[in-house]
Amino acid sequence: MSFEQMWRDLQPVGRSASSGGYFRQPYGAAETELRAWFTEAATARGLRVESDGLGNLVGWWDVASTGSTDVPATDAVLTGSHLDSVLDGGAYDGPLGVVSAFAAVDLMRERGVRPARPIGVAVFVEEEGSRFGLACLGSRLVAGATTWEQARELRDRDGVRFGDAVEGAGFDGTPMRLLDRVGCFVELHVEQGRWLVDRDAPVGVASGIWPHGRYRFDFTGEANHAGTTRMEDRHDPMLGYAMTALAANKQARLGGSRATFGRIEVEPNGTNAVPSRVTAWLDARSESPEALAALVDEVTRLGTERAGRDGTSLTVTPESVSGAVDFDPALAARVATDHEGGDWPLLPTQAGHDAGILATAGVPTAMIFVRNPTGISHSPDEHAELPDCLVGVSALADTLARLAG
Amino acid sequence: MSFEQMWRDLQPVGRSASSGGYFRQPYGAAETELRAWFTEAATARGLRVESDGLGNLVGWWDVASTGSTDVPATDAVLTGSHLDSVLDGGAYDGPLGVVSAFAAVDLMRERGVRPARPIGVAVFVEEEGSRFGLACLGSRLVAGATTWEQARELRDRDGVRFGDAVEGAGFDGTPMRLLDRVGCFVELHVEQGRWLVDRDAPVGVASGIWPHGRYRFDFTGEANHAGTTRMEDRHDPMLGYAMTALAANKQARLGGSRATFGRIEVEPNGTNAVPSRVTAWLDARSESPEALAALVDEVTRLGTERAGRDGTSLTVTPESVSGAVDFDPALAARVATDHEGGDWPLLPTQAGHDAGILATAGVPTAMIFVRNPTGISHSPDEHAELPDCLVGVSALADTLARLAG
Repeated sequence: MSFEQMWRDLQPVGRSASSGGYFRQPYGAAETELRAWFTEAATARGLRVESDGLGNLVGWWDVASTGSTDVPATDAVLTGSHLDSVLDGGAYDGPLGVVSAFAAVDLMRERGVRPARPIGVAVFVEEEGSRFGLACLGSRLVAGATTWEQARELRDRDGVRFGDAVEGAGFDGTPMRLLDRVGCFVELHVEQGRWLVDRDAPVGVASGIWPHGRYRFDFTGEANHAGTTRMEDRHDPMLGYAMTALAANKQARLGGSRATFGRIEVEPNGTNAVPSRVTAWLDARSESPEALAALVDEVTRLGTERAGRDGTSLTVTPESVSGAVDFDPALAARVATDHEGGDWPLLPTQAGHDAGILATAGVPTAMIFVRNPTGISHSPDEHAELPDCLVGVSALADTLARLAG
Repeated sequence: MSFEQMWRDLQPVGRSASSGGYFRQPYGAAETELRAWFTEAATARGLRVESDGLGNLVGWWDVASTGSTDVPATDAVLTGSHLDSVLDGGAYDGPLGVVSAFAAVDLMRERGVRPARPIGVAVFVEEEGSRFGLACLGSRLVAGATTWEQARELRDRDGVRFGDAVEGAGFDGTPMRLLDRVGCFVELHVEQGRWLVDRDAPVGVASGIWPHGRYRFDFTGEANHAGTTRMEDRHDPMLGYAMTALAANKQARLGGSRATFGRIEVEPNGTNAVPSRVTAWLDARSESPEALAALVDEVTRLGTERAGRDGTSLTVTPESVSGAVDFDPALAARVATDHEGGDWPLLPTQAGHDAGILATAGVPTAMIFVRNPTGISHSPDEHAELPDCLVGVSALADTLARLAG
């Protein structure tokens, strides 16, 4: 099962015939198929599959010399990523890290590498937060960053509780004990911008993750007839939303940050009714926590001001806010330097990852990025060229050999 | 069955426990219950119920003197309204006209009125267009303003075709022949603004309906990652939408028109994805067809300009456009004048009604409006006071007695 074969096997799973994009939300049919694929790929390599009460998976390359299948504490080398997608997402975000991990194991074996420390290929569930709204939910529960009591009450768009979805899928909600068994974590990921393209490099190593957050903006007004209600008698929450969406874009441009309103829900959402409520979610990211807070404050201030003028109201609720992540500089240096052809470049990222959760929980963590020719991500058009993917596999195999040696 | 009793009977049908608003979309459970209520109320009054292949209903008070149950051609007096609602709508829009019609029949009989012409109490289906997007669909099909071939391909939000919904409800799609049997139509309706409040009048008579239309605005961009995509690399269709929503509001204010974006659909509608597409519906209404066209043109021009700057695109599709309706002035005068206490005032309306469809098809038509203390409509807060409703019943009974005498 080469990289290419694994990639072909995954291609149809959860793919929309109309858009070509992926719908791989947790605890659905596509994810069940992905879990089966993972188990088969791991088992075919002689990796011991460990699953937990959430659906997180690790395929363990146990240390042969000890003859034991018990994983020694504190020094395993963990790699992997996730298999879920955003709604209508691309093929690479997540699966590239998992497929590359298996391919790296194959390559290490071809090269005769005999690791002194166990190596685990991990899959964390609901990394995108596309169903229950909280990104990296699987790794958060493993790391203790979110408790089961908090997580189980999260609801999807149909009102299904996370706790019920987990149980409905046959799990019991208990996360695996991983932190005290893992010495470091290396996640390979497709780049989600064009930083590597601009520097003509096939791979790079992450220096850290920008602080970022999701904020729910509830604009409340008064439903009314779209024809007979005079413009001056309206309390239309759509106007406050529209102004806020434009303001968020402008403020992010001015401050070198990122701000997006990509999700919106309108009540009653009828053509001939002034809405009673517009709920929209701001995704905001900045270089520093101070810049992020200033951005969200300014957008909130401008939105509240407009709502006041319209006789509507705005409530802003942070749904998840992640501080800055600085990846372990010593580990990054160990991964990035002393290669034939020079060091791999260090780049920042604006996207959250399971690697960020584990780093925050104290696990020395690194990320390897693979070049994305268009920079497009979270879209059916997301892409990486096969030669770059294979450079990524080789880079990951080198890295795992160094760290587990 | 007094007005109050009928009103109480209808109160729970299709009502949301959370909002208190009504969800009475065509061919659903609530509408089936409303049809059964209508048939019972008509039959209890000895009215002969006629149904057609769409679910339109008429309860006929046949002319007793002829001893025939055949309705004579050309001179029946039709009244009534509709029983469906917008999504999360109010109790009065539609049902007030139907309940008042039954109560007016009762009052005429109490007063010993013996009509010389048959009187029909009508219910037209899908007046609001809340399910299939085309308002007054039942009366349009009866009037020939829309053909079955056009209508059956309309789809609801779940992709169900109108033709399949009609057949699934046990109907065959054939509209009743009504135009050549009806001499005039009088629809009683709750006012949807505060015109009567401002003039301290419990009832008024409509002079005409503003031209109005629904236009689908499709903004197309490029899906991308909300964190890693630089602001300057985006093609975010939400920005063009937001600007257009604000522009529509401003242009309507400037021109004395009405413009509303109350319905929006976003793809993929994920918090951490720049959208690939935003579809929104403009509801626009103006005093003249020229003003309406100018409004829509200007909003389209501004939206297209902004889309060009964002590297996105905008396509505008008119989904339904209705010209101005001038109600029959002679009929309006006959309805509105020579009352004790003075004439009833004449007012324009900005809302489409089945009365507008029948008027356009050549039926002499009038509308009686009942005062709405807040002017709120298409909302759970829509209201009319009982004393005003009873004035409306009496006014309708007077009118029917005049026209059928």
